[in-house]
Amino acid sequence: MLTISRLSREEAEVLVEGAVAKSNAMNIPMCIAVCDESGHLIAFDRMDGGKVSSISIAIDKAFTGAVARKGTHVYNQLCQPGQPTFGIHVTNGGHFSIIGGGLPVTVDGTIVGGVGISSGTAIEDQEVAEAAVAYFYEKTGYSA
Amino acid sequence: MLTISRLSREEAEVLVEGAVAKSNAMNIPMCIAVCDESGHLIAFDRMDGGKVSSISIAIDKAFTGAVARKGTHVYNQLCQPGQPTFGIHVTNGGHFSIIGGGLPVTVDGTIVGGVGISSGTAIEDQEVAEAAVAYFYEKTGYSA
Amino acid sequence: MLTISRLSREEAEVLVEGAVAKSNAMNIPMCIAVCDESGHLIAFDRMDGGKVSSISIAIDKAFTGAVARKGTHVYNQLCQPGQPTFGIHVTNGGHFSIIGGGLPVTVDGTIVGGVGISSGTAIEDQEVAEAAVAYFYEKTGYSA
Amino acid sequence: MLTISRLSREEAEVLVEGAVAKSNAMNIPMCIAVCDESGHLIAFDRMDGGKVSSISIAIDKAFTGAVARKGTHVYNQLCQPGQPTFGIHVTNGGHFSIIGGGLPVTVDGTIVGGVGISSGTAIEDQEVAEAAVAYFYEKTGYSA
Repeated sequence: MLTISRLSREEAEVLVEGAVAKSNAMNIPMCIAVCDESGHLIAFDRMDGGKVSSISIAIDKAFTGAVARKGTHVYNQLCQPGQPTFGIHVTNGGHFSIIGGGLPVTVDGTIVGGVGISSGTAIEDQEVAEAAVAYFYEKTGYSA
Repeated sequence: MLTISRLSREEAEVLVEGAVAKSNAMNIPMCIAVCDESGHLIAFDRMDGGKVSSISIAIDKAFTGAVARKGTHVYNQLCQPGQPTFGIHVTNGGHFSIIGGGLPVTVDGTIVGGVGISSGTAIEDQEVAEAAVAYFYEKTGYSA
Repeated sequence: MLTISRLSREEAEVLVEGAVAKSNAMNIPMCIAVCDESGHLIAFDRMDGGKVSSISIAIDKAFTGAVARKGTHVYNQLCQPGQPTFGIHVTNGGHFSIIGGGLPVTVDGTIVGGVGISSGTAIEDQEVAEAAVAYFYEKTGYSA
Repeated sequence: MLTISRLSREEAEVLVEGAVAKSNAMNIPMCIAVCDESGHLIAFDRMDGGKVSSISIAIDKAFTGAVARKGTHVYNQLCQPGQPTFGIHVTNGGHFSIIGGGLPVTVDGTIVGGVGISSGTAIEDQEVAEAAVAYFYEKTGYSA
């Protein structure tokens, strides 16, 4: 039997809280998704003004960060034309995101979930995702 | 020009809060979704123990409640074999829910969003959705 | 942090082994799927003569057994016309199976995965799924 | 009447066995899929630690190797922007893989199935697929 560590809903809310704080500081209303280590959604928030098209993008970013185990910005580079991973963006029913703003969330070296942000530029989305994860460690006391 | 009334994120959270309270009282961890009057997701919470298969069902119920403008339990009856609406459950890419637990949220007679609950029986899901809406009116002071 | 128990690949293979033995005894070549507690595929085998149309059905049954937490034959009854859960068969992108042959696999009362069988009648599929689970407990020493 | 040569389940297992051995040697847990000459899944194994996002990718690679009749790494080159085959990665409902790691399996010049590997880099996936095919010839005595 395998033993798996997974974000609780309360911990997922900490990630949302961190993302909201950063989004407010940047004055960009975001869509924020948190999923578990298997890529299934735990929490989602669309801030007032968050984009409708970003609902599924944020969810896909959280999914990808958790189960493909890299930041979605990393896959953006790996998936450029000419690269051997070009094409991965259309896999998993189109839910594999290669746009920055999705990150795995690790605790003691193990992925326990993923966070995905969308509504700004890819750079801004990534910045908010990183702030959410930093806030998560600060608030919970976990180490990456 | 049309002027649309729409749940804010803060108001969506009130619905989530009401649903969580009722779920806890019933001791059934639920998936809870709130969408706006256009059927687009605002907030989602999967309580610890909520079913993975209920993530999309809760979202579909909130969507249906808001945009089809009836409780999903009403469509369950309308969609029975022999009824003229039979078949509506496969429309909208399969996102039209006919399982109780999805409700429109109205303010002064206007639909401003929808709430969808899933993980229990259809009856239990509907009970939680109704409690969420009741809590919403109580907490916000709005009338249906 | 939540702590989750999940079938290992070796344990998934025991379920496949048990299903193959029963299928051979019944002389019906089957499609056999085993997924983890989150519904994600671990192992799949199509025996020589297993139906092509049963590949996805077996996978969907394993998914449903694990994440919807009931045998798919139970949902078959709950989803009959006139029942409040009628319509659940079209949810989850059509992957929610209501045809007997999918079962949750529990260890000490916790769902750790699911098994799905297809190619015979629903009754035969269920019989093989049950035999697979019985074999699993016998071979591993786990209790349900 | 056509007579088709097709991998048996037992032969498919040889490919899985070869892939597992190579994956273990490389210390990368993989998702491994084997399909028949028609692109339909025969066997699938997710090793402990194989990526969830690689389940469908491995299956798509096996499918593509078998029915499009070239290694998926070959299509990666053919599908680059500027090439006349650019765009093939979105065909077949997104199941046409252009990421290395999918290979046709031939016997006496005829394609009898396909193998698909995913969870490492495209280069690593291809290496494991090639090792699986080499092991298959060695173990079965067939010639390509």
